Amino acid sequence: MWKPERSTNKPLYRQIAEHIEQRISIGELPPGSVLPSERKLAEQYGINRSTAVQAYDELRASGVIERVPGSGTRVSKHLWGMTPLSVPNWSRYVEGGTFLPNLPFMRRIRESIQSGENHINFASGELAPELAPNEAVRTIMTQHPFEETLGYGDPQGYAPLRVQLASFLRTYRQIQATDESILITSGSQQSLYLITQCLLSPGDAIAIENPSYCYSLPMFQSAGLRLFGLSVDKHGVNPEEIRTLYRQHRIRMVFLNPNYQNPTGTVLAPARRLEIVACCEQLGIPIVEDDAFSMTSLETDPPMPLKTLDHGGTVIYVGSLSKIAASGLRIGWMVAPQSVIHRLADARQQMDFGLSIFPQWIAAHFLNSGELARHLDGLRLSLRHRRDLLVDALIRELPEEITFELPNGGLNLWCKVNKPVGDYELLEKGIKQGVLFVPGSVYGSESGYVRLSYARPREEEIETGIRKFAEALRTTLAPR
Amino acid sequence: MWKPERSTNKPLYRQIAEHIEQRISIGELPPGSVLPSERKLAEQYGINRSTAVQAYDELRASGVIERVPGSGTRVSKHLWGMTPLSVPNWSRYVEGGTFLPNLPFMRRIRESIQSGENHINFASGELAPELAPNEAVRTIMTQHPFEETLGYGDPQGYAPLRVQLASFLRTYRQIQATDESILITSGSQQSLYLITQCLLSPGDAIAIENPSYCYSLPMFQSAGLRLFGLSVDKHGVNPEEIRTLYRQHRIRMVFLNPNYQNPTGTVLAPARRLEIVACCEQLGIPIVEDDAFSMTSLETDPPMPLKTLDHGGTVIYVGSLSKIAASGLRIGWMVAPQSVIHRLADARQQMDFGLSIFPQWIAAHFLNSGELARHLDGLRLSLRHRRDLLVDALIRELPEEITFELPNGGLNLWCKVNKPVGDYELLEKGIKQGVLFVPGSVYGSESGYVRLSYARPREEEIETGIRKFAEALRTTLAPR
Repeated sequence: MWKPERSTNKPLYRQIAEHIEQRISIGELPPGSVLPSERKLAEQYGINRSTAVQAYDELRASGVIERVPGSGTRVSKHLWGMTPLSVPNWSRYVEGGTFLPNLPFMRRIRESIQSGENHINFASGELAPELAPNEAVRTIMTQHPFEETLGYGDPQGYAPLRVQLASFLRTYRQIQATDESILITSGSQQSLYLITQCLLSPGDAIAIENPSYCYSLPMFQSAGLRLFGLSVDKHGVNPEEIRTLYRQHRIRMVFLNPNYQNPTGTVLAPARRLEIVACCEQLGIPIVEDDAFSMTSLETDPPMPLKTLDHGGTVIYVGSLSKIAASGLRIGWMVAPQSVIHRLADARQQMDFGLSIFPQWIAAHFLNSGELARHLDGLRLSLRHRRDLLVDALIRELPEEITFELPNGGLNLWCKVNKPVGDYELLEKGIKQGVLFVPGSVYGSESGYVRLSYARPREEEIETGIRKFAEALRTTLAPR
Repeated sequence: MWKPERSTNKPLYRQIAEHIEQRISIGELPPGSVLPSERKLAEQYGINRSTAVQAYDELRASGVIERVPGSGTRVSKHLWGMTPLSVPNWSRYVEGGTFLPNLPFMRRIRESIQSGENHINFASGELAPELAPNEAVRTIMTQHPFEETLGYGDPQGYAPLRVQLASFLRTYRQIQATDESILITSGSQQSLYLITQCLLSPGDAIAIENPSYCYSLPMFQSAGLRLFGLSVDKHGVNPEEIRTLYRQHRIRMVFLNPNYQNPTGTVLAPARRLEIVACCEQLGIPIVEDDAFSMTSLETDPPMPLKTLDHGGTVIYVGSLSKIAASGLRIGWMVAPQSVIHRLADARQQMDFGLSIFPQWIAAHFLNSGELARHLDGLRLSLRHRRDLLVDALIRELPEEITFELPNGGLNLWCKVNKPVGDYELLEKGIKQGVLFVPGSVYGSESGYVRLSYARPREEEIETGIRKFAEALRTTLAPR
């Protein structure tokens, strides 16, 4: 992104002012546009706040921008003889649309990550860059000549990758699937998006775990679905609750994340798996099984997926490489009855015309290489070490203040603050201390829970990060 | 995809029957699933129709599938003691959802392409594989070590690519844009999808060219928009019609494809461009300018984009590498006011969590290399040669039957059949002859128009293809 030049004679504030003025003149900031606060402007361009103030002062003096009481700084509405009518009312457009914006907490966290201020990041539920199979990817790119054609691909995804995936699912998850019933997606997020958009209609009732990462995804609300929670105990959700929700609300689909559930880390008990599949089969309700974390087990392997218990095509199985290799690959998959795969592949063509060949080609080579098994072994060791560092630090720093269950897999630790605490205040205090995490309410839980991901920060940051978190928590809890 | 083994002793029909039975047993074809017709089954697995009949006979004899009068062949509903209740009613799910399926004509064409029967393809509006910069891409992959991190990327897209694009747009299209106001998308299709989903609401009226490729995209209907056509003459659309539509329907957005319009090949006249931008500025209506083809000019360069006439941020500019380099890259972009870019980037995160780093990294290197200019020169020469081959063949084969304007750029030739002809019958006759094209009604025009793309077939196929097309047309026109 553009940054001011520090090596020239021109003062920084002038460079910033000229840059903003240029962006206004080419329509990137039309008359009436809200400009960032001085604090955010400073963050964005890596300057002092006083420099930001000076830049805005200069622009205000020349009439290009104006301060509007109550709503900050805006580009002047009467600019270069343009009447306010001469520009689309963009704020009305961007506030419209059926697709809802991201949750404020999530946007606040993303802003802090992007500010470049090097917060210690326990918020992103993804692998640290050093945990990705970087060397394996480089080797694939340089050692295998790329000979694929560069046209629009197969709507279901690159055929050789589907063949590799069928064998991967058989070997690692005991799932029987043919390449004909696999859809390659750009990750679990796209799989869920296609399901909510194409198989469900506004007003449909669905059951999701509570807490659940589904609550953090506005896509469920954007699709107009009515969400009903299934409470999660130590052994996952209770099959009886599915029956109750069906009786009361005629739920049309159940979304489950049975292995190292996000955010709680819970594993759904084997007996309950059997019961849930039998119950949903009997009621004719499809189950969407998100199995993102099963291969990040830290001690014993998790039970087999629901999909292995399903012979009539009740389960849509969703997986991806994001949590076990690299989220930047953007490779996920879905196994489902053929009519579902065809419908979703067709819809996806309309949305983005399918996936790029490159990540699919790399993923196919990666799955086909001996690197995969080696990578997974190394990954599990590293995750286990990180989890232990996190747990040790939490016990040392906050022995009384928080409670948690030890997660046996996944990337996250879910902890409860033992005294009442406001999510908003805790997050802001954390950001001020230089540490990021996700407040539990993002996942639909009551206030006072926090999700800490141990996969994202660097190993050597974990201890310091938890010291900062403890500091933020203690100042939030302190009597005022 | 799975195909029967021809080298074993097991008869082909038995292999097919066992494969289908296996797919039924693992839930890929749940009880009640509709199976393909015998003709399609034969196409799918590359076998004779009689082998397909035999396979179905065997499955029917064992009670696994059944013929249902009026709706073809289905997996038996009472299978292995399962009651019909024990499976979700998938047909109700796949027919539901807010997102509409693709147009029947488009699905029919895609099926024919996938059947592997080597139809000569004038239907796909994309470059033939040999026109893509294959060698340049291979060189990038092997000669530049890939050093990027593999985590979730920037929601607006890979920053170095945005910087390259800002310079590309300045050099080739005289558009001033900073990397801060560019959103990388997976192609124009995703740009349009984001705009229709996030900036417009169900019931909103919009104006599109008539004919227009927008009619071929169910996304406009799926978003619940009311579409109003602007007629296209030799000089493009008429600004006066925009005013009329605004008065009558309060249109909220105008979608234009000013250079080598798809499907007509028309170039919007410079004077009209000025008038349209002025008119939309005055009315405060955003213009979405799709500039996919401007760099495929075959003779003189097209006029400058509407975006260069826009200083208040009225135009959302959409482009991509699909029609000038390779559709398989899946790289497109959008230039728009910052608030729009932020809103759409945020929504895209919710849909697919952003783009893979690999195609973006390759595109950034490609734009930064000397290869780009060389590639474009070669591409234009090839396209011109193909267009001329197509035009010559049409004049030779169908001198009386069709009329067309010579396109000076783009990938398509739009032709009118001079006598009444049914789109459906013509397409089916074409498929039978072994040639594919898109009936004009897909683009909203009346019956009797055809879009022929000269970019997709191999050069040496064009003449034969047009002979087949002429044969199909003549048999369709013949009195019965």
